[in-house]
Amino acid sequence: MAVKLITFDVYMALVDIQGSLTPVVAEALSITEETAFDFVSLWRVKQMERAALSNSIAYGHKSFMECTDLALNYVIHKKKLSISQIVRKKLINSWNDLMPWPEALAATQELKMLGYEIAILSNGDLHMLNNIANKFENCIDHILSAELAQNFKPHPSVYELPISHLGFAKNEILHVAGSPSDVMGARAFGIKCYWSNRSNDRVIDEAFKANYEDNDLNGILKIL
Amino acid sequence: MAVKLITFDVYMALVDIQGSLTPVVAEALSITEETAFDFVSLWRVKQMERAALSNSIAYGHKSFMECTDLALNYVIHKKKLSISQIVRKKLINSWNDLMPWPEALAATQELKMLGYEIAILSNGDLHMLNNIANKFENCIDHILSAELAQNFKPHPSVYELPISHLGFAKNEILHVAGSPSDVMGARAFGIKCYWSNRSNDRVIDEAFKANYEDNDLNGILKIL
Repeated sequence: MAVKLITFDVYMALVDIQGSLTPVVAEALSITEETAFDFVSLWRVKQMERAALSNSIAYGHKSFMECTDLALNYVIHKKKLSISQIVRKKLINSWNDLMPWPEALAATQELKMLGYEIAILSNGDLHMLNNIANKFENCIDHILSAELAQNFKPHPSVYELPISHLGFAKNEILHVAGSPSDVMGARAFGIKCYWSNRSNDRVIDEAFKANYEDNDLNGILKIL
Repeated sequence: MAVKLITFDVYMALVDIQGSLTPVVAEALSITEETAFDFVSLWRVKQMERAALSNSIAYGHKSFMECTDLALNYVIHKKKLSISQIVRKKLINSWNDLMPWPEALAATQELKMLGYEIAILSNGDLHMLNNIANKFENCIDHILSAELAQNFKPHPSVYELPISHLGFAKNEILHVAGSPSDVMGARAFGIKCYWSNRSNDRVIDEAFKANYEDNDLNGILKIL
């Protein structure tokens, strides 16, 4: 494989949203871990729904932080909770402090050592992604945010970024996806895709299935 | 209000997907009503995910029946079930035989009697919508399918159909939505929207909230 650049999805592939946010939410709102788990799940679903809406409606790009913020409002109201501005800010800021999956740092370090360039290719805003990249000890060469494309994945303009902004050819890129929607977007655009498929999920449309998949990031090293 | 045309969402506003399909799925697969309920919920979620994918990826419009079909495959595999081709066909065909909500026929009849033109404005394919329209005893004057726009709601090109195909002005249209995504699509496009909000849900983005809402279709008559 003539891969030179490996692009990583962030919020599913590189970091553990649920594991990072559940204890923060439980403590901040004084609720059980189980209730906090549901809170975080719904928050993530609504964040992505608001992002998807931006791709469809003709109202331009909403920043990912704004999507995160609106989704938090939704969950607070839906669950009939009330929170102070301080707690609210703490919850929003927790998106800048998500933990990498246990094997994530070692895997990216090894890929870097093998000579690959490493990029983040994410729906997050640049400032959010800078915070995540800092946890990867100089492994991340490039940060490509959906902000640059003014659309969210799985829109093709986001997968186009390594080509338009960094000058790579399609066949020099391997995208590491963390969700079925990301897999299908990358494949529909025509780049190779590895799926870090932790929950043994499936794509809805087999026409756009991953070239490779395994249940965490270590599998990337096996296919290169 | 200078409304002349009332457009109806179908799969949430006019007909009861869950109530119609759950007993059919339970009987066809010999599973409990509870398991069948979850089956139908997931089927609907994945159908809409595949439709949403069509709006984002640059692969053209997938028919809604194809989305329904792919989503059924997903659920069958995910739930580790196996079904015969005959049962499969029966399940797919059940989308042509969905039951209107209890008050739906009377409400549309009354609107028709009051002199409003009535249209279906739906993500369904034309042939699927013809079957639904037949249950409404000559109340439906026009059938506007997402097929005509080659996009799915909430894409603005679908809400444009009553204007481009029927010649109405934006302010002559009231759209009756059945889901928050449909509400936001209609409002972002700039037409008035009534939300038949049966589950007391909220929109993620209050910038695009419904002009009117109530918990079933009877509320439409109160606001005209």
